[in-house]
Amino acid sequence: MNTVSRSHLPPSTEPSSPEPSSPDSSGQASIVASLAPLVEITASGMAETNRIIIDRMQSEIDLIPTLAGHLIAAGGKRMRPMLTLAGALLGKPKAGKSKAGKASEATLTNAAKLAAAVEFIHSATLLHDDVIDQSDMRRGNKSASSIWGNEASVLVGDFLFARAFELMVEAGQISVLGRLANAAARITEGEIDQMILAGNPAAPVDDYYRVIRAKTAELFAAAGEAGAMIANADKPISYAICAYGLALGTAFQITDDALDYAATAEGMGKSQGDDFKEGKITLPVMFAWQDGNEDERRFWQRCLADGDIADGDFDRALSLMNKHDTITRSLEVARSHATDASQIIAQLASQSASASGDVAEALIAAANFAADRTT
Amino acid sequence: MNTVSRSHLPPSTEPSSPEPSSPDSSGQASIVASLAPLVEITASGMAETNRIIIDRMQSEIDLIPTLAGHLIAAGGKRMRPMLTLAGALLGKPKAGKSKAGKASEATLTNAAKLAAAVEFIHSATLLHDDVIDQSDMRRGNKSASSIWGNEASVLVGDFLFARAFELMVEAGQISVLGRLANAAARITEGEIDQMILAGNPAAPVDDYYRVIRAKTAELFAAAGEAGAMIANADKPISYAICAYGLALGTAFQITDDALDYAATAEGMGKSQGDDFKEGKITLPVMFAWQDGNEDERRFWQRCLADGDIADGDFDRALSLMNKHDTITRSLEVARSHATDASQIIAQLASQSASASGDVAEALIAAANFAADRTT
Repeated sequence: MNTVSRSHLPPSTEPSSPEPSSPDSSGQASIVASLAPLVEITASGMAETNRIIIDRMQSEIDLIPTLAGHLIAAGGKRMRPMLTLAGALLGKPKAGKSKAGKASEATLTNAAKLAAAVEFIHSATLLHDDVIDQSDMRRGNKSASSIWGNEASVLVGDFLFARAFELMVEAGQISVLGRLANAAARITEGEIDQMILAGNPAAPVDDYYRVIRAKTAELFAAAGEAGAMIANADKPISYAICAYGLALGTAFQITDDALDYAATAEGMGKSQGDDFKEGKITLPVMFAWQDGNEDERRFWQRCLADGDIADGDFDRALSLMNKHDTITRSLEVARSHATDASQIIAQLASQSASASGDVAEALIAAANFAADRTT
Repeated sequence: MNTVSRSHLPPSTEPSSPEPSSPDSSGQASIVASLAPLVEITASGMAETNRIIIDRMQSEIDLIPTLAGHLIAAGGKRMRPMLTLAGALLGKPKAGKSKAGKASEATLTNAAKLAAAVEFIHSATLLHDDVIDQSDMRRGNKSASSIWGNEASVLVGDFLFARAFELMVEAGQISVLGRLANAAARITEGEIDQMILAGNPAAPVDDYYRVIRAKTAELFAAAGEAGAMIANADKPISYAICAYGLALGTAFQITDDALDYAATAEGMGKSQGDDFKEGKITLPVMFAWQDGNEDERRFWQRCLADGDIADGDFDRALSLMNKHDTITRSLEVARSHATDASQIIAQLASQSASASGDVAEALIAAANFAADRTT
C-alpha cells in the first residue's frame, strides 16, 4: 500500500489503474453512483451542516449573506464537509462510552459545526481565488467578484474565515482547532507557491505536487481528520482518514486541472481554458512541455510565461496535449492517487472492526469519483 | 462615568476636555511621554512578542516572510499587543495561586503568544485594506500591494490570519479564541459596512460610529480582554479592559481620520488626503456636510459620491473644514472618548486593589496618546 507521503511524490510511471480514465457520457451514471453511498450516509449530518451554514453566514450587514449565499447556494459537491461527517462516523465512540446515545448525538452536532467550518474555509478561499485569478465564472454562475467587486469578495472571504473559527470554538475541542488552523495556513502557502510557479512550464513536476498538496489536499485531509478527532477516534483511524484525504484531494485537483482543458464550460462550472489564460502550470502542460520539441516549448513559453496569447493559441495548446496524450496521462495519475485512497481505507477496515462497514465502503466508492468526475 | 455602550453612541456636544486638542510641536514631548509608561511595563513581554512575530511569520515560501516582514518591520505603535500584555498584567493571578511564580510565567508566555496573534490579525487587515483602498503608502513605506501585487497581499494576509489562530491554539484557552474569532468577524463586518457607507456624506453620524467601533475598537477591546482572560482575571477586570479598549480604539480611529486631513504625509506614514480620494466618510467630512450650505454640499457630493475630483478640490475641502472647524471638533470628540477610557480604568483601580498600581496608571496615561497623537 502506498503511504501518506506518496501523495506529494511524483507518481509512478505505471499508474495502478491501466484503464483509460477519460469518462464518456455512458460512464456518467456510474460516476454519480460512486458518490451516492457517501451522500447517503452523511445525509442527516449534511442537512444539519447546511442549516448551520445558512444560519452562520447571516450578518447585520446584508451584503454578507447576499454575497456568501450567491456562492454557497450555487452548490458545489460539498466533498469536504462530507469527509468531516464521515470521519466522525468512522470514529464514533463505542456504544459503551455513550450514555443512552447522548454523547454520540453531541459528537454529531459538533461534527456538523466542524463540517460547516470546513465549508466556510473552502468558500473563503474560493472568494479570494476569484479576486486573484480575476475569474468571471464560478460554479456555472458569474463569480462574486465580477458582480460585487474585489473589495467585497476579499472582505466576505475574511468574514467566512473568522466565522469558521467561531464554529470550531463552539465545537469545543482545541486540538481540532489547531489541526484546521494549520491546514488554513498550508492552503495559503500553497496558493502563494502556485502564484510563484505561474508562467514556468519547465518547473520540476515535484513543484506541482507540492502546490496541490498544500492548496487542495491538506484541507481534504484536515476535514476528515477533524471529524475523526471530534469523535475521539483511535489514532489509526485519524491517521488513515488523513492519508485518505491527502490522496483523494490530490486526485481531485489533478482531475480538476485536466478538466480545465478537457471539459466544456457548461459541465465544469467555469470557463474552459481559464488556467491557460492565467499562465497556471498544471500537469497536462508540464507533460506537454517535457515531451515538446523546441518549437513547441517556444509556444508554451510565449503563452504561459509571456502571457502573449492570440486567437487560435488555445486550440493549438489542445492539439499539442492531444499529440502527447497529456490529458489522459494526467487523468491516469489522478486515478493512481484515487486508488491509493481506496486502499488506505480498505486496509484500515481489514485491521479495525470498528472502522469497517458502510462508512468505509462509502469512502472507498467516493475515491473513484475524485478521478472519474467530469464536473 | 460613561459605560461601554457610550463608545458607539454619538458623542455629547460638550466634550469632557475643553482644551483645544490639536497638538503643536511643543506638545509632542508630552504625547510621547503619555505612551512611555505602557511601553515600559510591557517591555519584556513585547520583546518576547516580537520574537514570536518574527519566528511565526517564517515559511518555506520565502515571499511570505519577505512581504510580511516589510509591513511588520516598518513598525507601527504595537498598541494592540501592548494592550494584551497589559490586560494579562492587570489580571495576573494572586501570588497564592502560583507555585513559585511558575503559573504566572506560563501565563505571560501565553499572553505574548496572544499578543503576537493580535498583531497578526491587525497586520492581515492592513494587507487586505491596502488592496481594497489601492493604497500606495503604509507606515511611511510603499505598501506591500504596490510592491508585490494584490494577489500576494491577499494571500499573505490570509496566511497571517491562519497563523494567528495557530498561536491562539497554543495559548490553550478556548474561550480566548472565541473572543478573538468574534472580534475578527466584527472587523470584517465593519470594513464592509464602511465600504457601503463610502461616498455618502449625508449618512447619519451613528453610521460612522458603528463602522469604527466594529473595524477598529473591537480589536482593541478584544486584545485587552484576551490578556485579562488568559491570566484568569476576575470578571470586573475583564469587563473594564474591554470597555477601555472600546473607548480607546474609538478615540484612536477618530484621531486617525482627523489626521488624514490635518497631518503631513511624513508624520502620518500615509498620504494626506487618502480618505478624500477614496470617498471615505469620516467625522470631519460629516460635520462639514451637516454645517454646509447648498453649494458646499454639492461640492462634497461631487468629490465623495461621484469621485469627480479636480486639482484644488482637496484644498477646498480643507478650507471648508477650517471654516466649520471640523478637524478640531473631531479631535475633541476623540478626546472625550479618551477621557472615558481613562475614567474606566481609574474607577476600576479605585474599586479593586489588585487592579491599582503601575499597570492602571500606564493605561490611563496611554489613553491620552490615542487622542493627542500626531502620527
